[in-house]
Amino acid sequence: MSDASEKLTQSGLSRSVGIVEPKTARFSEPLALDCGRSLPSYELVYETYGQLNAERSNAVLICHALSGDHHAAGFHAETDRKPGWWDSAIGPGKPIDTDRFFVVCLNNLGGCKGSTGPLSIDPVSGKPYGPDFPIVTVKDWVHSQYRLMQYLGLSGWAAVIGGSLGGMQVLQWSITYPDALAHAIVIAAAPRLSAQNIAFNEVARQAIITDPEFYGGRYAEHNTLPRRGLMLARMLGHITYLSDDAMRAKFGRELRSGKVQYGFDVEFQVESYLRYQGTSFVDRFDANTYLLMTKALDYFDPAQASNDDLVAALAEVKAHFLVVSFTSDWRFSPERSREIVRALLASGKQVSYAEIESNHGHDAFLMTIPYYHRVLAGYMANIDLASTPRGASSPVCSTEGAV
Amino acid sequence: MSDASEKLTQSGLSRSVGIVEPKTARFSEPLALDCGRSLPSYELVYETYGQLNAERSNAVLICHALSGDHHAAGFHAETDRKPGWWDSAIGPGKPIDTDRFFVVCLNNLGGCKGSTGPLSIDPVSGKPYGPDFPIVTVKDWVHSQYRLMQYLGLSGWAAVIGGSLGGMQVLQWSITYPDALAHAIVIAAAPRLSAQNIAFNEVARQAIITDPEFYGGRYAEHNTLPRRGLMLARMLGHITYLSDDAMRAKFGRELRSGKVQYGFDVEFQVESYLRYQGTSFVDRFDANTYLLMTKALDYFDPAQASNDDLVAALAEVKAHFLVVSFTSDWRFSPERSREIVRALLASGKQVSYAEIESNHGHDAFLMTIPYYHRVLAGYMANIDLASTPRGASSPVCSTEGAV
Repeated sequence: MSDASEKLTQSGLSRSVGIVEPKTARFSEPLALDCGRSLPSYELVYETYGQLNAERSNAVLICHALSGDHHAAGFHAETDRKPGWWDSAIGPGKPIDTDRFFVVCLNNLGGCKGSTGPLSIDPVSGKPYGPDFPIVTVKDWVHSQYRLMQYLGLSGWAAVIGGSLGGMQVLQWSITYPDALAHAIVIAAAPRLSAQNIAFNEVARQAIITDPEFYGGRYAEHNTLPRRGLMLARMLGHITYLSDDAMRAKFGRELRSGKVQYGFDVEFQVESYLRYQGTSFVDRFDANTYLLMTKALDYFDPAQASNDDLVAALAEVKAHFLVVSFTSDWRFSPERSREIVRALLASGKQVSYAEIESNHGHDAFLMTIPYYHRVLAGYMANIDLASTPRGASSPVCSTEGAV
Repeated sequence: MSDASEKLTQSGLSRSVGIVEPKTARFSEPLALDCGRSLPSYELVYETYGQLNAERSNAVLICHALSGDHHAAGFHAETDRKPGWWDSAIGPGKPIDTDRFFVVCLNNLGGCKGSTGPLSIDPVSGKPYGPDFPIVTVKDWVHSQYRLMQYLGLSGWAAVIGGSLGGMQVLQWSITYPDALAHAIVIAAAPRLSAQNIAFNEVARQAIITDPEFYGGRYAEHNTLPRRGLMLARMLGHITYLSDDAMRAKFGRELRSGKVQYGFDVEFQVESYLRYQGTSFVDRFDANTYLLMTKALDYFDPAQASNDDLVAALAEVKAHFLVVSFTSDWRFSPERSREIVRALLASGKQVSYAEIESNHGHDAFLMTIPYYHRVLAGYMANIDLASTPRGASSPVCSTEGAV
């Protein structure tokens, strides 16, 4: 046991995967994208937790949401204040049990945490892509994740798992590569955005784009950042991640100073929380990436190619599904998850559905809610590794040149 | 019949109050405000519709919401494209029937449509108030409205009526001046904002305040406007005024150009709608006023002085209430109206409650929904003008010097 992992154990983190190190996979074959452009070459940064078994049948893919990345579990250094974003669910003895599964999580294309994105150098121009990075879709991500699967020497996943925008990637995996995954776990997602969801994204985008420091996305060349716009986008996002009830429980109408100030400084606790969330986000996230992620959300609509018939879109799906929603989630409400469940059932697929009682809103998918974790752990424990695909065939709907 | 009203009749507007003209009331007695400051003198712009009867018992006060004003019904000129903001409900034969009632509507203090506010000249400095205009509360507005009542030679109202922030003024009227109104009609309101409501207001305020063209509220001195910030605030507001269902019905996921563009120009119809609402608002509303209105919303909390006990806060109320909510309103949901109803009942007051089925969200209160208008018309028709206060006594909770 290393000094570092010993310390982690001592500090009560024995169920952590411990210290982890991101790795980089380089791809030199061009990737054709939905938008019509292609990436000549690209890198994907990823982490793995647990051990791949001899049969290569215990690999699980975790897909991240809007502001997530490849660092899903463990710590990068023993001085880290916080573990990866889904450490609550991934680790030894946890619902996604690293004693049994080999877990892979990557930063998606267009991201800002190491994978090729707006901050990367465009090999053609020799300068950072910035706003010239192509718009990527959920399907593009799934194609790139399939290549990562091949790169890792895997022929299929025991399960592909994700929450929110991550859940949309799971749904797309099951449609595009039906032979490459045995189980699909879709948490707090929707089959496509509603007009209201798009509207919130549009206000966030306008906040960023109209910030005078945005410079058409070329803020780096001007040695600046669209701080105000990105802060507003994140503040707004946080309202949609929390439920009204969760905000009431967390902040109520509590005043920060105890009495009304009759001014425009922070007055209520909830204002203080939002400003903190907004300003701290600016230092750790790229505005061009934020814009790309919201567009990937807006465009996701797997039923579109099937005349808006989700049942037809799911016809070739082979994976078994677990769909999970949370009662107080108003960003992607349980009703949106039930749309997925009903379409799967109508299409004759196998699906389990759990609607978890929670007042945490959309954020619940990241939280340690006992019943939620029991459902997830129970489903994972029942996965028969013998059913993991051993030789995934070609995708059902290939983008030319993409795979 | 004048040429103008004849034309209005010909164009099918026979149920309109016709051409109306705003009037200005000047007050030279200082008005002490909740914030501790006072206005040395001020003006209130108002309109009236219908005729005051000989007994002066048929006057009705309409209180406006966040972006409303004194122009509630009729037209200012025959070339006007649109009538006043509540023309659907106010006019001859309409629910608030001007054949029977004398209807008064004013622009609130702090407004930007003629009443004293940030755009007015500060008599002390000789310059526009701008950001130095004092923060006004719902209670301050009610005090100023009471003075307008006296100015008009009225000793009480047959009814005080308002939706949203207007409904909050009605509730405050019933508490502060229990002897001055016979009926209180509170539509699509809440007894106070939730943390989520405050959070949305805070994002709107930050959008305005962080706009580099805001200049600490002194944009007029710099010959500019915080256009971006006010646009974002309004876009966000519109999301909360419409229900998810209403947006789905109105816009769905319809693309403006018919196909996906893979860019950041307007793509979905809902984006086009929001951008239009945002940009057109900038030319007709003042940013400092918008900030003041959101603060009045945040601070409204009549139960606070009674240890958060709304029942106790309503103890002295004499008015009979009609409370109306709309099923798809998520800004101020039916549950928030039921809080008011339950407190009134627990306090032994007379209250009728109607929960109107509608998928229009918060905006429903401005719409011509048949059942809603029948409820409103029925309640108004049953008002016995003999019960209108003939000599309103002093307020229950006087701000020193305010009345």
